[in-house]
Amino acid sequence: MKDYAFGIDVGGTTVKMGLFSTDGVLLESWEIPTRKEDAGCNIMPDIAESIEKKLEEKGITKDDIKGIGVDVPGPILQDSIVNKCANLGWGVVDVTKEMTALTGVENIKVVNDANAAALGEMWKGGGEGHKDVVMITLGTGVGGGVIIDGKIVAGHFGAGGEIGHMLVNRFEERICGCGKSGHLEQYASATGIVRKAEDILALSDRPSTLRDLPEITARDVFDHAKQGDVIALEIVDFAGQMLGGACSIISAVVDPEIFVLGGGVSKAGEILLASVRKYFRSAAFHASEDARFAIAKLGNDAGMYGAVKMVIE
Amino acid sequence: MKDYAFGIDVGGTTVKMGLFSTDGVLLESWEIPTRKEDAGCNIMPDIAESIEKKLEEKGITKDDIKGIGVDVPGPILQDSIVNKCANLGWGVVDVTKEMTALTGVENIKVVNDANAAALGEMWKGGGEGHKDVVMITLGTGVGGGVIIDGKIVAGHFGAGGEIGHMLVNRFEERICGCGKSGHLEQYASATGIVRKAEDILALSDRPSTLRDLPEITARDVFDHAKQGDVIALEIVDFAGQMLGGACSIISAVVDPEIFVLGGGVSKAGEILLASVRKYFRSAAFHASEDARFAIAKLGNDAGMYGAVKMVIE
Repeated sequence: MKDYAFGIDVGGTTVKMGLFSTDGVLLESWEIPTRKEDAGCNIMPDIAESIEKKLEEKGITKDDIKGIGVDVPGPILQDSIVNKCANLGWGVVDVTKEMTALTGVENIKVVNDANAAALGEMWKGGGEGHKDVVMITLGTGVGGGVIIDGKIVAGHFGAGGEIGHMLVNRFEERICGCGKSGHLEQYASATGIVRKAEDILALSDRPSTLRDLPEITARDVFDHAKQGDVIALEIVDFAGQMLGGACSIISAVVDPEIFVLGGGVSKAGEILLASVRKYFRSAAFHASEDARFAIAKLGNDAGMYGAVKMVIE
Repeated sequence: MKDYAFGIDVGGTTVKMGLFSTDGVLLESWEIPTRKEDAGCNIMPDIAESIEKKLEEKGITKDDIKGIGVDVPGPILQDSIVNKCANLGWGVVDVTKEMTALTGVENIKVVNDANAAALGEMWKGGGEGHKDVVMITLGTGVGGGVIIDGKIVAGHFGAGGEIGHMLVNRFEERICGCGKSGHLEQYASATGIVRKAEDILALSDRPSTLRDLPEITARDVFDHAKQGDVIALEIVDFAGQMLGGACSIISAVVDPEIFVLGGGVSKAGEILLASVRKYFRSAAFHASEDARFAIAKLGNDAGMYGAVKMVIE
């Protein structure tokens, strides 16, 4: 009986490994370091060895394994080939082929990390019970994943769900991390929120408790907003405007049932959701006005859940 | 042998009827008037009668019919139920059920008209040979359809592909036809282009051949731009900026291989495409920069093609 599967989230620093039952329960998770040296040639052998050990420890045979899902921070072709991944030191790598050779497991699928997180959140997280889900991850940058009818929209050029790079301000002169300008990431990421705070504080001498801090983080902005600081509230309102507007645009394209916000910034919770919802409703096409918003639930495990979901359906 | 199928495009004025072979050739097309009176209760019986007559005329039996695809200018649920359609006088109508009762044909599918046009253009028109296609119809308004992996993204609330209602200018004070503000339709529709022309001409006394016209149409704007009129060129450039920017956003969400532009405004051809492409490339996430742009090919037949495609796969 193929009762087990692995969900493996390969990050730039650590590889998160998850042993799942095929009904979707995470039985055990652990981490191994990502050895990026030598063009990342050790990463897959390390993963295979760690799987081998775990099987031995648990007394599970290879025949019990339904499959291995792997997510990687790069563009993926045909659920199997990584098309360059600077974070891992990889060029074009057929992960399915190599992992099958290393493990003897045939059913191996590879998926982009942001898309895996979206699929995971749809399945067991903030989007549970829904099949048309858009996830937006608000961290240092802004990532995302689009799930339509339970399936990832990877995109023809592998850029499906690159929500952070939606043009939301065609008058912006500052440059986005990607080299273009006016992208959502410049306003809704932790970095963007801090930059906005610095801008708005520099514009005037208006009092703000944020001025007492030696250095401002996105979390500070939300914390001070919750305590009623007017300038902090303005910054949150602006982030909500950019995010809510972007979500209204996403609705006009793929019209999801629910948006799931994840990443560090999403920990702000209801104060962020309320602002996003307000601007969403003010801009969205009427049919989509009742789309729901939720905070992600799986945290850093979302990728493992999404990866394993790819192989246990 | 089920060698035939019907593709039927139900519009507010006429119903376009198409008899297709199941390999996708339009054998014959004709029109009947749309009788909207009495809550549109005659529309489906009229269609059924016209089908009946055509079968008799051609000596085709019901057993030869693979299916009937119907497109309607309204939101559709489960490929079968129209959820209110003011243009036809309909409330909630189960078209599949009624049409099956009227015709005896079991395989009947219903699809939104803009989505049908997108599917038709993907199949036999400007997007032929591609499976990830976004169509944008630039007419009095702006409509659209999103096709991913050969399938329509209808959206959870039926608003998938409502490209015209993407927020592209959050500072707009004028109201869109839908009641919100700053939507693409306000800038890229024929109406929007004419409004921009009036605005820009009123702003100064700069010379323009457009000033000689008693009334300006979108077509005039493109014609005068092709003849080198500077103000007309500025108007075209602005429309291209709004459209190209919107397409870059669509790429960051679903990342299609090709955009197909249809509707009256698209007849402007290369002058429009060049402007759209320029602004698309300047704003798009790098991975999607090479997405293609094409002009639609099927004109008013696109809906029939898309509708029939729903029943002959």
